[in-house]
Amino acid sequence: MRSGVGFSQGLRRKLGDGPAWTVEALRQVRYQVIQSDNLFSPDNRHLLDSSEDTPLRSGDRRLIIIDSNVDSHHGDRIRHYFDHHGVAVTIVPLRADELVKEWDSVSRVVDAMNEFTLDRRREPVLAIGGGVLTDIVGFAASLYRRGTPYVRIPTTLVGLVDAGVGIKTGVNYGAGKNRLGTYAPATVTFLDRSFLRTLDLRHISNGLAEILKMALIRSEDLFALLESHGTAVRADRFQGSTGELAGAGDAIISEAIHLMLEELHPNLWESVLERSVDYGHTFSPTIEMHTLPELLHGEAVMIDMAVTTALATLRGDMSEKQAERVYTVASTLGLPLWNDALAVPSLLKDALQDTVRHRDGQQRLPLPLGIGRHHFVNDVTETELREAVRLLRRQVQDLFPAHADRFGPLQVDA
Amino acid sequence: MRSGVGFSQGLRRKLGDGPAWTVEALRQVRYQVIQSDNLFSPDNRHLLDSSEDTPLRSGDRRLIIIDSNVDSHHGDRIRHYFDHHGVAVTIVPLRADELVKEWDSVSRVVDAMNEFTLDRRREPVLAIGGGVLTDIVGFAASLYRRGTPYVRIPTTLVGLVDAGVGIKTGVNYGAGKNRLGTYAPATVTFLDRSFLRTLDLRHISNGLAEILKMALIRSEDLFALLESHGTAVRADRFQGSTGELAGAGDAIISEAIHLMLEELHPNLWESVLERSVDYGHTFSPTIEMHTLPELLHGEAVMIDMAVTTALATLRGDMSEKQAERVYTVASTLGLPLWNDALAVPSLLKDALQDTVRHRDGQQRLPLPLGIGRHHFVNDVTETELREAVRLLRRQVQDLFPAHADRFGPLQVDA
Ligand SMILES: NC(=O)c1ccc[n+]([C@@H]2O[C@H](COP(=O)([O-])OP(=O)(O)OC[C@H]3O[C@@H](n4cnc5c(N)ncnc54)[C@H](O)[C@@H]3O)[C@@H](O)[C@H]2O)c1
Ligand SMILES: NC(=O)c1ccc[n+]([C@@H]2O[C@H](COP(=O)([O-])OP(=O)(O)OC[C@H]3O[C@@H](n4cnc5c(N)ncnc54)[C@H](O)[C@@H]3O)[C@@H](O)[C@H]2O)c1
Repeated sequence: MRSGVGFSQGLRRKLGDGPAWTVEALRQVRYQVIQSDNLFSPDNRHLLDSSEDTPLRSGDRRLIIIDSNVDSHHGDRIRHYFDHHGVAVTIVPLRADELVKEWDSVSRVVDAMNEFTLDRRREPVLAIGGGVLTDIVGFAASLYRRGTPYVRIPTTLVGLVDAGVGIKTGVNYGAGKNRLGTYAPATVTFLDRSFLRTLDLRHISNGLAEILKMALIRSEDLFALLESHGTAVRADRFQGSTGELAGAGDAIISEAIHLMLEELHPNLWESVLERSVDYGHTFSPTIEMHTLPELLHGEAVMIDMAVTTALATLRGDMSEKQAERVYTVASTLGLPLWNDALAVPSLLKDALQDTVRHRDGQQRLPLPLGIGRHHFVNDVTETELREAVRLLRRQVQDLFPAHADRFGPLQVDA
Repeated sequence: MRSGVGFSQGLRRKLGDGPAWTVEALRQVRYQVIQSDNLFSPDNRHLLDSSEDTPLRSGDRRLIIIDSNVDSHHGDRIRHYFDHHGVAVTIVPLRADELVKEWDSVSRVVDAMNEFTLDRRREPVLAIGGGVLTDIVGFAASLYRRGTPYVRIPTTLVGLVDAGVGIKTGVNYGAGKNRLGTYAPATVTFLDRSFLRTLDLRHISNGLAEILKMALIRSEDLFALLESHGTAVRADRFQGSTGELAGAGDAIISEAIHLMLEELHPNLWESVLERSVDYGHTFSPTIEMHTLPELLHGEAVMIDMAVTTALATLRGDMSEKQAERVYTVASTLGLPLWNDALAVPSLLKDALQDTVRHRDGQQRLPLPLGIGRHHFVNDVTETELREAVRLLRRQVQDLFPAHADRFGPLQVDA
């Protein structure tokens, strides 16, 4: 049986010196991402009604794995919500930060599922927390009895616009970041900005870096929103304290998510290696590792985007004026534009080599074309990278003279 | 975009009080099962040429994880093969039996992949061993960088006709058999009967139980082959020492695999809970656990099939004559028809309850209709089970009077 363009299903037997079989099958993946503010206010029925297969009803029970920091801030209202609706919840707080993003944490989640004697057909696990927590729980759920449904409720900005909307799960292994993992979407992800109220501003900026990334490669409109409202929505932590802030915050988050999903959905399993969402992720893994634990992920991504903005300027793909706009917005969002790691000889070259290895032998480097568009290139040279670093340094010093003392010696000049 | 019947792909956004997105995507799964005797004889090119994407060529390198028992019997000719073809192999022997089918073993495989600095796009991992080894390596590969191709070379009869042809991987966790796992097919599985030469007869019988299962539910022809040639091919360990033995062995294995694949391929992810291949697997998990470590998996499955054959006889779905044929074949294949666990009050009832829990609240019990056909039932009662045990005991005592002393007291009569 053939199904659709390029897809096929069936069993074929070939007889020869020995028989051989080919098995072809299609797996349908389907998931929802639902924005719903104040998910846990007692009159919000999203969590109860959204899942057609497993609606949540009085008398039901659920296992909830929650980031322990989130539990201390928001645990009371979450418990109250389920009490109010007669749902018996077992809430398991889990420490969830990058240092414990490892198999042991997965194993604890599995223990909790065993102790709960989870009915995997009727009782999806709820994961409430940042990207670390949802990656761990998603991983555990995807392995438990070879696949147990789970529901994600991200509580960081990175979770809302990135970790919470795709289908990747995983943990670190040894020095390998996300070395082990699966592709396993949460049945539903609920996006509730009210959690951001308690998130520190540095983590708000961290998420804004991924939003800025989407703007730079896909949408001048989104960029303009960040330009005019970025500072304010950041300070407000997307809580919509005034009508204007609410509107801007809404627009920024929804647009970032929509663009992200547009990029992800035709390539959920990353079989296509030219991924525009990899913008900012060419040099950042090496920069992040090199500076550990100085930079958050989004900060390293921002520094990568700063260098590649300079690179695009050198190539004439971006004007100096546009680059200045990018640097200015980044800075108002509380993101760094420079790190002395950039001055380390051959660091960027090594980073590029490493990325090439993971992109099957080619650079496949997304580079901005002005603001809001991009193309892929395969011909970036070491010399060009060194020039881009020099240009970045000069531009940033010109733009922010007061911060000139932030720059260490530029070893690339040596 | 819609693709095929019932399948769909795309991104939909719904605007409402908050926006909501639905993501739909299809994943194509494709794998091969190739029968090739003497895979490692130097002139056999199957392993070198079969994989179109990653043919194996002189100068290439491969990581091989091998069951340490298999290594001691067959390691030399495997090393010689790769030497001969100029392939640099790193061979990692791994202890692989049910007692070490756990995360620690997966972790060792991951360590080996890290040390090898595996290029997941060009260097599939080779797994050579019984079901335990291939389940462990398949699991590790499926998690490594969220999915690394692997090639399976089963070395037991269970591997050849069962563990090696589907897409399930996994390990035990605590008391939970295969509690953690994934659905991840090997790109190619090579079936090479020459490995069975060194397998002890009890494990040959163990695999024959799964073959007999396929015969009972799907094929009177396969059953007839077992009836006429089972004893001989078992003693010959499927080595084809004479022309007749070769023909019979070929036919039995190929037919069992083909029937297995016919049953598996439309339901690879087990979303349909009525699975004919679950025949013999309703009571056997409990029997296996209860008698640990007395019975091998296939032996427990055989006892389950013996009871359900009696059950079918009671229901008039099988004649006493047909049941006798089943018991006689089982016995010539070296498989047990009785275990005193059957005499433990309520053991079968508890087993059924447990299975019902895993089949989403219904029995969905495949039961034979004569020999070679089956149907599913949902109305088996405790009383009926007790009667079936009594009937089985009587039939087996009548058939094999010399073994009457094998039977312990029948507590169900009490
Ligand atoms: N699966 C994906 O597609 C994907 C995408 C992007 C990032 N990630 C992963 O996400 C992780 C980063 O996630 P993150 O940025 O959310 O960091 P995080 O999960 O480490 O959370 C940051 C910190 O904030 C705390 N926290 C979380 N929510 C809070 C709240 N509402 N109030 C106060 N404190 C709160 C956490 O306990 C933690 O200490 C990385 O491990 C990354 O690999 C995954
Ligand atoms: N993935 C699946 O779909 C699937 C299907 C059926 C069974 N299984 C799993 O397979 C496992 C059972 O597999 P098995 O029956 O192959 O047992 P096994 O892998 O434990 O092998 C049996 C014993 O034989 C040894 N051995 C293997 N090959 C040999 C050879 N050629 N010569 C001499 N000794 C050899 C092994 O070291 C082991 O001690 C179970 O864990 C079961 O869960 C998986």
